[in-house]
Amino acid sequence: MIHYHTLAHPFTTEAGHTFASLTLAYHIYGRINAAADNVVWVCHALTANSDVAQWWPGTVECGKFLDPERWCVICANIPGSCYGSTGPLSVNPATSEPYYGDFPALTMRDIARALDALAADLGIHRIHTIVGSSVGGFQALEWAALRPSLFQNMVLIATAAYATPWAIALDETQRMAICADSTWGERRADAARAGLAAARAIGLLSYRGGPAYNKTQQDPPAATPIAPHRACSYQRHQGDKLVSRFNAYSYVTILNAFDTHDIGRDRGGISRALASLTARTIVVAISSDIIFPPQEMKALARAIPGAQYAEIASDYGHDGFLVEGDLLNNILLPFMTPPDSL
Amino acid sequence: MIHYHTLAHPFTTEAGHTFASLTLAYHIYGRINAAADNVVWVCHALTANSDVAQWWPGTVECGKFLDPERWCVICANIPGSCYGSTGPLSVNPATSEPYYGDFPALTMRDIARALDALAADLGIHRIHTIVGSSVGGFQALEWAALRPSLFQNMVLIATAAYATPWAIALDETQRMAICADSTWGERRADAARAGLAAARAIGLLSYRGGPAYNKTQQDPPAATPIAPHRACSYQRHQGDKLVSRFNAYSYVTILNAFDTHDIGRDRGGISRALASLTARTIVVAISSDIIFPPQEMKALARAIPGAQYAEIASDYGHDGFLVEGDLLNNILLPFMTPPDSL
Repeated sequence: MIHYHTLAHPFTTEAGHTFASLTLAYHIYGRINAAADNVVWVCHALTANSDVAQWWPGTVECGKFLDPERWCVICANIPGSCYGSTGPLSVNPATSEPYYGDFPALTMRDIARALDALAADLGIHRIHTIVGSSVGGFQALEWAALRPSLFQNMVLIATAAYATPWAIALDETQRMAICADSTWGERRADAARAGLAAARAIGLLSYRGGPAYNKTQQDPPAATPIAPHRACSYQRHQGDKLVSRFNAYSYVTILNAFDTHDIGRDRGGISRALASLTARTIVVAISSDIIFPPQEMKALARAIPGAQYAEIASDYGHDGFLVEGDLLNNILLPFMTPPDSL
Repeated sequence: MIHYHTLAHPFTTEAGHTFASLTLAYHIYGRINAAADNVVWVCHALTANSDVAQWWPGTVECGKFLDPERWCVICANIPGSCYGSTGPLSVNPATSEPYYGDFPALTMRDIARALDALAADLGIHRIHTIVGSSVGGFQALEWAALRPSLFQNMVLIATAAYATPWAIALDETQRMAICADSTWGERRADAARAGLAAARAIGLLSYRGGPAYNKTQQDPPAATPIAPHRACSYQRHQGDKLVSRFNAYSYVTILNAFDTHDIGRDRGGISRALASLTARTIVVAISSDIIFPPQEMKALARAIPGAQYAEIASDYGHDGFLVEGDLLNNILLPFMTPPDSL
């Protein structure tokens, strides 16, 4: 069930905007136990929401690594998004109209600070495990750097300590596609629909990569010189699907926040920030991920004190974290419940 | 120097459109020798032109593999492009106005047939070596499948025997970005400028790949929470650069032709078509190419009778064929001039 919480205190962004009231939508699966030591906090990726069981099949289930019988699993929709938390389609109290393009810029650190404020307001002072995949991992790392003692364990899947030039180039290209849509900037929720669809299609290329497309979208032998292609309808379908559930303003807000990610900023650099983390950590890479390739994930694991490294062998690229539920459970069940803790 | 030739006969496309007159622009470097056995024909990639010396630095030079003292190097601008050959900005004789969006669809086979007609009109009945990189390799393969006996040698760099689902998805995403620009379809040469810039930025992602971006576009340590990124200005700059020299109609025409590429069509499949090739062939892959990865290039080499395989170790991805001139020369000089031929 979805819950809504308005932060107890005004929230000021790093860039200096103060939200007098910032609301976060969140889900809770399972119950907090008497010792209050079973909270697992999941940070979601780009266009997901707080309903982990919906977007991450095979995880919030009995016997899986987010088993709601054992854990109290919490996930909050990030600010700037459009699934119940304050975002560009929310009403701007200064104008009594939606923010749209006037929504204040957020940094990844702002998002982590908002999650931290929510946890404090909910009376959660200890998190057994923080789990983040992709941009969710950005939040997990930022939050852990902000407040290391809050977390006992950390699961980082297909993510990074900073936004690399390659990841930023992927984002900028998506923003270019959105800006190419001349309806971008119009004060309505469905501005830049076609641009958003193209942006999503760009994202999909990077989430899947060559082997996944070549595995799933092969055409039958062409009967005519100019034949339709499955890969084309797939790209358009994925674009349309996102447009039906998201908006370009939230998308750009989160892409912009993505690009600010750098846990080393004001902390003496990335190595030093990672060395300060105290949670028992596992870093999980996907063999075919072209956004966060195994080589970079290994370097991330080496930089976090005592971190384990695991790799999922998959042709599904970055999307492997959503698709390879069984392989993920095989790695994360033993991590979450080490034999000596039973 | 650029030359223009209007084909001696009307040209009918596979889809059934007849160009009463089809003009091709071409460059010739060096001179054909008395034996007429020194013609090297270069097929150009997506947005290039017939001026090989301009777009392929370090090749058409004394001592390099396209040495104009030794070879008569010919390259023609492909139909559908905008560098002198008949394309969407040419005047449609039926309307006395430019074609724009009415330009007839071309297949990759049409393009190869147009090159073949040009060679015949120029009196060239023997080509020592056909060279094609990227979409240029598509043309080389199609042309060689069409008329195997014309070619003694073939150089295929970073290319494929058919457009894979992954390559088609890259193209479709670029078309989506162009169509998202509401000026697409307007009857003017600069329609969909912003969409074309975004499309080019998408292309760049695939031409370069992660390692190249991370090698060349790192930011200095961020001084502010929301700092500018080199990768963003790079993407926008590359988009603007293409817009200043190309047009969205030619771009879409050539992308559409790209997607039709399948040398197996009407030839009993790809393996059979490749097995029919008779030129002495070398297949050159680039280690970090994510469009035409080494694994697929190796399979291409295995399928062509007697073909050699070579790989350039480079972080520049698909663009390695343009960037790594020295490495390319090291491979292609001995191929073009085997020791026993001296």
